[in-house]
Amino acid sequence: MDTTARRPIVDLTDAEARLKLPLKWGVPEGVIPAWVAEMDYAVDPVVLEAVQRMLADGITGYPIFGWDVDLAESYAGWSERHFGWAPEPAAVHPVVDVTAGVRVAIDVLSGPGGVVFPTPGYNAQHGLAQVTGREELLLELPTSAERAEIDLDRLDRLFAAGAQTLLLTQPHNPWGRVFSRAELEGIRDVVVRHGARVVSDEIHAPLVLPGAEHVSYLSVEGTHDHAVAVVAASKAFNTAGLRCAQLVVPDTAARKRLADQPMSRNDSYSPLGVTAARAAYDHGDGWLASLVERLDQQRTLLGELLATHLPEVRMRPLEATYLAWLDASAYGHDDAAAVALQRGRVMVSSCTSFAPGTTGQVRLNVATSPGRLTEIVERLAGAWR
Amino acid sequence: MDTTARRPIVDLTDAEARLKLPLKWGVPEGVIPAWVAEMDYAVDPVVLEAVQRMLADGITGYPIFGWDVDLAESYAGWSERHFGWAPEPAAVHPVVDVTAGVRVAIDVLSGPGGVVFPTPGYNAQHGLAQVTGREELLLELPTSAERAEIDLDRLDRLFAAGAQTLLLTQPHNPWGRVFSRAELEGIRDVVVRHGARVVSDEIHAPLVLPGAEHVSYLSVEGTHDHAVAVVAASKAFNTAGLRCAQLVVPDTAARKRLADQPMSRNDSYSPLGVTAARAAYDHGDGWLASLVERLDQQRTLLGELLATHLPEVRMRPLEATYLAWLDASAYGHDDAAAVALQRGRVMVSSCTSFAPGTTGQVRLNVATSPGRLTEIVERLAGAWR
Ligand SMILES: Cc1ncc(COP(=O)(O)O)c(C=O)c1O
Ligand SMILES: Cc1ncc(COP(=O)(O)O)c(C=O)c1O
Repeated sequence: MDTTARRPIVDLTDAEARLKLPLKWGVPEGVIPAWVAEMDYAVDPVVLEAVQRMLADGITGYPIFGWDVDLAESYAGWSERHFGWAPEPAAVHPVVDVTAGVRVAIDVLSGPGGVVFPTPGYNAQHGLAQVTGREELLLELPTSAERAEIDLDRLDRLFAAGAQTLLLTQPHNPWGRVFSRAELEGIRDVVVRHGARVVSDEIHAPLVLPGAEHVSYLSVEGTHDHAVAVVAASKAFNTAGLRCAQLVVPDTAARKRLADQPMSRNDSYSPLGVTAARAAYDHGDGWLASLVERLDQQRTLLGELLATHLPEVRMRPLEATYLAWLDASAYGHDDAAAVALQRGRVMVSSCTSFAPGTTGQVRLNVATSPGRLTEIVERLAGAWR
Repeated sequence: MDTTARRPIVDLTDAEARLKLPLKWGVPEGVIPAWVAEMDYAVDPVVLEAVQRMLADGITGYPIFGWDVDLAESYAGWSERHFGWAPEPAAVHPVVDVTAGVRVAIDVLSGPGGVVFPTPGYNAQHGLAQVTGREELLLELPTSAERAEIDLDRLDRLFAAGAQTLLLTQPHNPWGRVFSRAELEGIRDVVVRHGARVVSDEIHAPLVLPGAEHVSYLSVEGTHDHAVAVVAASKAFNTAGLRCAQLVVPDTAARKRLADQPMSRNDSYSPLGVTAARAAYDHGDGWLASLVERLDQQRTLLGELLATHLPEVRMRPLEATYLAWLDASAYGHDDAAAVALQRGRVMVSSCTSFAPGTTGQVRLNVATSPGRLTEIVERLAGAWR
């Protein structure tokens, strides 16, 4: 296979999706799943073949522990190609998954003060601060806000009150935002003023859509002494189950602190995940270009479908990710996700898991076929209107 | 394939081992590796085919999170068949690996007091207490001790001084011991007297050799309110890289505490690891029987080789595991592992990582071919004598 060639996005049939995506599609017959962040597309054959070859070779044992030069260089090359900036390979370290990488960074590198978590925020990272023994401090984006932005004054006050870490999600899930360099510089200034730290979850970086550009927080000047990024190929390439993400640690003193930790702090990544990540970084560009094209089309289609069927739904521009945040409160349902499931037979994610105490909003996963997305929005309209 | 049939143990050639076991065999050309706990045997084809089938189906996404009834029932069935005792399936929960399971059990269920760690102890779990924010308290087995036993008086004193958890390894690595029911009852009595907890790492249970019998700590009366076990098929089946172990939690209140944790506490296991574990538990008996036979032969061969070539090496009976603890101090080398590598071109594990401050001992991995084991001991003799 010519691994540099464009490869098409292959839509899964319902039966295929039920087989290949047991979590997302583990829904009752007749329900269309549009919740957890997995895509109804076949995995890039180049990535799949790389892990299949590994198992054909009978490789099921431990990975090489510690720094992996090949993985590090693959990521650095990818980052340079896609974002015009790259960490030095020595900064790139394997972890089992992104959330575990965020955890180890806070555990080892952050002070004991609270963790600022902008909400609505990625639901599986709610409570992560508590897991590290720290307080979780919500920085709420009001539903009414015209633009989704980190409120720097509130961030400043949270740090002044003792918080010591910001968990940044860039691009943001579920805001769908890509923060600009200027915005990131504003965040950096507040962080630096308080001597705080940033953990930047950049898992969605490959999924920035036309019109926006990914800026790693680490590519902003003056961030290396206080920040790490957690990156992965797993979200863009639908391989979260293979278990490898990367922790990018630009500061050598921080790297040493991590290296001095007992092995059990970070030794759970899988060699299959390492191989999948390398294949994606080295050979995935042709497939990813098709994916981004498709997601851009899905974004346009979603806009048209909402205008036609659910004109009262409010949605901020989707700049990245395939996860749209819909404010359906105009239709008067507090638990819009429950209504979608019961009346519409569509499973979307409820706002409460992203933003405790909120109502009327849902997260909708658009990474499916145009036909299914059309059916989904029509069903949501039938349920909500 | 008839999955119930006996299947032979297939020795890997050097070239195959170098391909299939990148960690263990990542040694300089000419060095024989006998260190990390991986076996120079091909993976059971039944287990390998199960994970290969999964990738052929293109399953690379998230597993079903939380309790997995199929995995739980597979483990319970296996445990009943092999050990004559089984937890109820509701007690069995996936974790990414055994060490992560030990960590989550201590993090969530143990008091803040110290963790008693009998030494020599599994090296990658040294420092795990610190990772959970607790003190590590060594309960040392003196090199001179005739028999490898948990010293109950010292255990009692450590609990009296504030320790609250015992990290038990049953069977024990690197002692090679299988604790008897009577010994476990003795441990239980001390634990109960102090209201302490036990985390029983039983990863080596499938590797109990003829002459001994595995007794799960949880099968001892009066342990369910204060103990969990962490089990896995991964050590016996050489699939540690696939990433799934099981946490056995017999107490319903403890189960609820675990279930109430944020998802990020325990969501890193791989669906491939789940499948490998199920295949091993459901269909692995025929292969495991051959493995135990082979390891028994290797144990006998080791005894003969030591008697011939290294008569001054002291070794307690190997009741389980394929990891022999050799006291070579009679030959006068403090760092016997370094001498073995430099002069003998054999990589064994140094005692210092298992028992800080000790000298003259090594851990030797015998899970290889008879020919390689012979060569290993001859080389050790050449190096040490
Ligand atoms: C922002 C963000 N971080 C992390 C993850 C999950 O990554 P992992 O499974 O590697 O922890 C997701 C999944 O959707 C996500 O949206
Ligand atoms: C006693 C013991 N526990 C745990 C492990 C490692 O298990 P895991 O890789 O699942 O953490 C080993 C590996 O040899 C071991 O000997």
